[in-house]
Amino acid sequence: MWLQRRITLDARPRGFHLITREIERELPELSGLTVGLAHLFIEHTSASLTLNENASPDVRRDFESHFDEAVPEDAAYWTHTAEGPDDMPAHIKASLLGFSVTLPVTDGGFALGTWQGIYLCEHRDRGGARRVLVTLHGE
Amino acid sequence: MWLQRRITLDARPRGFHLITREIERELPELSGLTVGLAHLFIEHTSASLTLNENASPDVRRDFESHFDEAVPEDAAYWTHTAEGPDDMPAHIKASLLGFSVTLPVTDGGFALGTWQGIYLCEHRDRGGARRVLVTLHGE
Amino acid sequence: MWLQRRITLDARPRGFHLITREIERELPELSGLTVGLAHLFIEHTSASLTLNENASPDVRRDFESHFDEAVPEDAAYWTHTAEGPDDMPAHIKASLLGFSVTLPVTDGGFALGTWQGIYLCEHRDRGGARRVLVTLHGE
Repeated sequence: MWLQRRITLDARPRGFHLITREIERELPELSGLTVGLAHLFIEHTSASLTLNENASPDVRRDFESHFDEAVPEDAAYWTHTAEGPDDMPAHIKASLLGFSVTLPVTDGGFALGTWQGIYLCEHRDRGGARRVLVTLHGE
Repeated sequence: MWLQRRITLDARPRGFHLITREIERELPELSGLTVGLAHLFIEHTSASLTLNENASPDVRRDFESHFDEAVPEDAAYWTHTAEGPDDMPAHIKASLLGFSVTLPVTDGGFALGTWQGIYLCEHRDRGGARRVLVTLHGE
Repeated sequence: MWLQRRITLDARPRGFHLITREIERELPELSGLTVGLAHLFIEHTSASLTLNENASPDVRRDFESHFDEAVPEDAAYWTHTAEGPDDMPAHIKASLLGFSVTLPVTDGGFALGTWQGIYLCEHRDRGGARRVLVTLHGE
């Protein structure tokens, strides 16, 4: 079984956001799979997807602090500055964290570890709605 | 053919560890595949998987030195500190390196480049045993 | 349908290079797929693959500037220095950016966002030709 579905995520503020439940709600067909893989692909270059701790909001806040420090808006070497100071750092952060996550599917759901959740990483000040193309494959 | 198997890796010290042979040993079914993909997924948020150089132990030591420098335990911006100074940096390092690797399978084995090996990246001082869920798919 | 093909990319200078068109040209079978996934895997440990902005050359130049700053050749902690000052940073950059990209395939082509392109990230001064093993799977 192959299934492909585009999910549009509402605009969120810059930062790291848990989206596991929202993605699961949009994929009722998951429950029909015994084994498979789910590929979640974000169709943008200034937002990204990763997995991480699903419990403490301060973890997600610390992600934002760290990446802002590691990829500073005021670095002297940026030349692509026409789209605002948050644009070029957003491109770098997106490639560091990645544009897709591939999740194992087992017995009708994502086989995530106890503490794992899906993060939408919004790197722009005003990124707007974000599209995620999901490809489900399994049996 | 779909196969899913959970592999438990013994506790290892903080650092970067080659696990290619150990993973292959646990997947005898690889030899039956002509073409396919292997998805290795770590079920944790403070350890990660990547590929890199499989020959020199000093490369793996330099990985540890670099990531300790790039994601410092004593950064002033950490607020999630209740689980110890190595916890929040471990979450960041894990998302930088990634929670899964997808490997091509060709003629009965992983189609790795000559110098590529699978790394378990243990970011905690005492991470304990780590579980990897492998999804094999091919024909 | 499964298809595996090795694509050899000509040597490029150190930096970030758009290779979307070149990869598509080598995969005429893409047009026969309605839905699927394409896994592009680089068989090296000092070059990497990622996606990012496909329009402005200055974005790709800023990628090079940022990663050279973030993973400096003259860091005091490198011990694996026998292969030149660009070697160990190249290994780190490659694991930060990643060895593979998995792309959704829809209606006969890669389902990339409007601004997304495939980057070959060449981290060595003289990396030479690079091999990418593509695994196409779909129906």
